Amino acid sequence: MSESTGAKGRKPLILVCNDDGIFSPGIKALAEVADEFGDVEIVAPDRQQSAVGHAVTINVPLRTRAFQVDNRFHGQACSGTPADCIKLAHHELLRQKPDLVVSGINHGSNAGINLIYSGTVSAATEGTIMGTPSIAVSCLDFDEEADLSGAQDAARKVIGYVLNHGLPPGVTLNLNAPAGPLKGVKWARQANSRYVEEFDGRRDPANRDYYWMTGRLELLDDSEDTDIKVLSNGYASLTPIQYDLTAYRLLGEVEGIEL
Amino acid sequence: MSESTGAKGRKPLILVCNDDGIFSPGIKALAEVADEFGDVEIVAPDRQQSAVGHAVTINVPLRTRAFQVDNRFHGQACSGTPADCIKLAHHELLRQKPDLVVSGINHGSNAGINLIYSGTVSAATEGTIMGTPSIAVSCLDFDEEADLSGAQDAARKVIGYVLNHGLPPGVTLNLNAPAGPLKGVKWARQANSRYVEEFDGRRDPANRDYYWMTGRLELLDDSEDTDIKVLSNGYASLTPIQYDLTAYRLLGEVEGIEL
Repeated sequence: MSESTGAKGRKPLILVCNDDGIFSPGIKALAEVADEFGDVEIVAPDRQQSAVGHAVTINVPLRTRAFQVDNRFHGQACSGTPADCIKLAHHELLRQKPDLVVSGINHGSNAGINLIYSGTVSAATEGTIMGTPSIAVSCLDFDEEADLSGAQDAARKVIGYVLNHGLPPGVTLNLNAPAGPLKGVKWARQANSRYVEEFDGRRDPANRDYYWMTGRLELLDDSEDTDIKVLSNGYASLTPIQYDLTAYRLLGEVEGIEL
Repeated sequence: MSESTGAKGRKPLILVCNDDGIFSPGIKALAEVADEFGDVEIVAPDRQQSAVGHAVTINVPLRTRAFQVDNRFHGQACSGTPADCIKLAHHELLRQKPDLVVSGINHGSNAGINLIYSGTVSAATEGTIMGTPSIAVSCLDFDEEADLSGAQDAARKVIGYVLNHGLPPGVTLNLNAPAGPLKGVKWARQANSRYVEEFDGRRDPANRDYYWMTGRLELLDDSEDTDIKVLSNGYASLTPIQYDLTAYRLLGEVEGIEL
């Protein structure tokens, strides 16, 4: 694959982040793919930050320390959330604005309702807010030793596409792939789905109640064009997402109502 | 105001949450308004959880303890995030499914880009995901002693509307009000905006770097129908929001592209 070039003929600068933390196998796998396209800088949480959503840190200061990923990629481990990492990288840590943000490879699906809880997706969304084209990449397998080769191949296609074509302002790409070899990438919409939680109530040695939350995903949507359906057919799913949450259809209906 | 009734002629059960924590003046102010319409149950974080976004707690167990708000409202303080509170309340803590979730009154704006970082809005969104009509309420003034009377009046109008008319599945209402008396409530869309962060880099006594994040909101949108514009004209803004983040317009454009 020929290397893409950033502005002024230089190699693209690609910022890599995640929410599983800088020690995760997934971030190394994504950095390897990004490295085929440009210069890689990693800024990622110094520990697991799954399900933090779009949290930002405002009440405590942020710390960073230099870190080598795989004895190969220059990185900084940050005490903050994925969204913090992206803000701090853009404003303080990188020598110039990156040409691309890639976040992942997350260990676990960010399809359907998962994406609103996802730190991986939030890092990419934050990149979009900062004006940088951004992609979130997730693999459905939670196992740290999962075969990420298909997710890497899908990421390679999508990174190539975005470096060549860019993305419209305000739009982030959310890529999910099954573990194992890539069957193909299909555009999809976010499936209507939710978690059905169960709380495992226990009592601690001091006789106080506590709860472990567990849950299973319930699909509320049986059409063929959703991310969850595409994934269940063995393909990687690619969904353009936005952070304008306005429900325009309802807004059109209610605007005449005086409150 | 006549009291609304829930299913089977009983008074509505209204679940009150927030992200500023169960000790905040705002939650008391909202519980007072909710109490005019039905039976109030408060389940809220046991401490400040601003800017946690849609975080959920999966790696540590959740704890709760009974709590009286203002010696008047029965509540439970929860160790988790606002989204956790809503899940736990629905599944474990309430005697029945609530008829309405109200979250707030947040001390600070949740208009424009703020809403994606907001724990207050996430609590309401989580209520919607659970199938309960849900409203987030915020007052623009960060001061704990701010005049919330206008936000209360706006909440009263919107709660009355929702208990009478319901909300479509998947839609949450995001209400913001200036401090002081209410001038009126206007429907609005989420303003395109972002934070321009500044990082105040310092060095600690052990000579290690740390950063305080600060930022100011930049409005990227000068049309009259946005939440931020409505608020700057002195009105409360009411925005229907959704958690389907699919950027349908782009999806329509790219679906033919093979990757």
